[in-house]
Amino acid sequence: MITLVTDFGTTDPYVGMMKGVILSKDPSAAIIDITHEIAPQDFAGAAYIIYSAFRYFPIGSIHVIVVDPGVGSDRSIIAVSMGGHYFLAPDNGVLDLILATGKVDFITTVENDTYFLKPVSRTFHGRDIFAPVAGYLSKGVAIDRLGVEIKKDHALRLDLPIPYLSQTGALVGEIIRIDRFGNLITNIDYLFIQKTFGLVKDHD
Amino acid sequence: MITLVTDFGTTDPYVGMMKGVILSKDPSAAIIDITHEIAPQDFAGAAYIIYSAFRYFPIGSIHVIVVDPGVGSDRSIIAVSMGGHYFLAPDNGVLDLILATGKVDFITTVENDTYFLKPVSRTFHGRDIFAPVAGYLSKGVAIDRLGVEIKKDHALRLDLPIPYLSQTGALVGEIIRIDRFGNLITNIDYLFIQKTFGLVKDHD
Amino acid sequence: MITLVTDFGTTDPYVGMMKGVILSKDPSAAIIDITHEIAPQDFAGAAYIIYSAFRYFPIGSIHVIVVDPGVGSDRSIIAVSMGGHYFLAPDNGVLDLILATGKVDFITTVENDTYFLKPVSRTFHGRDIFAPVAGYLSKGVAIDRLGVEIKKDHALRLDLPIPYLSQTGALVGEIIRIDRFGNLITNIDYLFIQKTFGLVKDHD
Repeated sequence: MITLVTDFGTTDPYVGMMKGVILSKDPSAAIIDITHEIAPQDFAGAAYIIYSAFRYFPIGSIHVIVVDPGVGSDRSIIAVSMGGHYFLAPDNGVLDLILATGKVDFITTVENDTYFLKPVSRTFHGRDIFAPVAGYLSKGVAIDRLGVEIKKDHALRLDLPIPYLSQTGALVGEIIRIDRFGNLITNIDYLFIQKTFGLVKDHD
Repeated sequence: MITLVTDFGTTDPYVGMMKGVILSKDPSAAIIDITHEIAPQDFAGAAYIIYSAFRYFPIGSIHVIVVDPGVGSDRSIIAVSMGGHYFLAPDNGVLDLILATGKVDFITTVENDTYFLKPVSRTFHGRDIFAPVAGYLSKGVAIDRLGVEIKKDHALRLDLPIPYLSQTGALVGEIIRIDRFGNLITNIDYLFIQKTFGLVKDHD
Repeated sequence: MITLVTDFGTTDPYVGMMKGVILSKDPSAAIIDITHEIAPQDFAGAAYIIYSAFRYFPIGSIHVIVVDPGVGSDRSIIAVSMGGHYFLAPDNGVLDLILATGKVDFITTVENDTYFLKPVSRTFHGRDIFAPVAGYLSKGVAIDRLGVEIKKDHALRLDLPIPYLSQTGALVGEIIRIDRFGNLITNIDYLFIQKTFGLVKDHD
């Protein structure tokens, strides 16, 4: 199973092209859209989305995040494995909250062009790198074939705010998104509450 | 096959999360979006959409409608079977036009939490109840395992207008939607025309 | 694999209905949305989209383009095969750039109503003709069963601008679309550059 988070929207044919390439490499892949409506180049927004969504997918899922203001520059692409989930993303901090869990198993650069669609364009790595690599991973290529292992603290991090319990006992978090219904979504999720206060029986 | 009608939009990750949960329960489910652009909490609008769309799907399809202003209150969730189609929805009238056909075979509450994702949140039953229950139904769990049978006239109805032939011979209906092309969609559908005037060879 | 390009948007249930019909004919079809956000009735816009996207899909794909201002008139529907790809579209020029390649293998009218959903509506051939015919093609019905072969130069063409190299050595093209990121997309694609100047190692 391959999930997609992009800032491509659905008016341009870019998402469709990516799916065509994925399915050319692995015709049996099930592709699920998480969202393509990340604000253009808002990698912090995407970081929250993938962090909150990935856990609902089955073990073995490949999560592809293409929010990539640095495409065409020398930023790397990385592949990460964590508890049976795989993440494929630019090394621009979009995986910050995944890395912040401290539970990442393995990180590699993605640079083995055996798995790329050639010629590789300068502006559409989603189609020419992310999509075919996701297809090959889905087909069973091992993650360590994709490039060179990098140390866990070498992947680029953002300073995305983490919720905390203050000394006065106040829960301190930030609003990270306003959803379609007008709900203010904070970074205080039930996993944090659970860790801080013990088992949660009921959560939003 | 599982179809989805929601008011979630596609910017937030909610639809993606639902699909992740469905596929965690039944990895072989094919999931089809009917629409996620129901106006927030417009269950009457959703009632027309599912009524007009379900008949084009194969027998055995599971139609999940999550337009649910009452989430977190004591409204029930119901599962309905009709002619081989299954419907999973809040008991808020969103199935009014399905119930109005008079052809429903079976209705049950959905309260057997064996089939829920736990802990169940107060605000996102789409992910925690509708999605896993749809996955289990798709995998073969019998509908009567989901809860307690309820009588057909006990499900909540709206008073959605039904078209009729007046005594002066006028067809009386209502405009229920304006589509993307500017067409005014009425509730006078070809099934009504067929029932009223006999076989229709050509229809819109 | 079946791809869809329409001007239906995703608010109305039309795309969902088409998918239901396709899957009723071939339950194993994988359906990929290229876009449903073609401006209403903009068949020239759709012509560029399908031309740029189809090549990323596997051989054997069936591309269904429903941008059809002439629905209900006497315009034909055509099916085209080219290099193992199939195209199903109104004969209104939406396949202009496919036909312009000069590589089309076979064209037929689509008029064998054995493969239609009946009764056929006047305004929704997407559901009643395109969708079931795509499903039957996907299931293995041969393209020459769909209607009457027509000569390649009998399909309707637009005069969509083709890029060229002027006598002064200038590349002359047109801007055909502005994408979500503000990129101006021209009709000068890398295939044209490749044909004009030789092998391209790097392209956008």
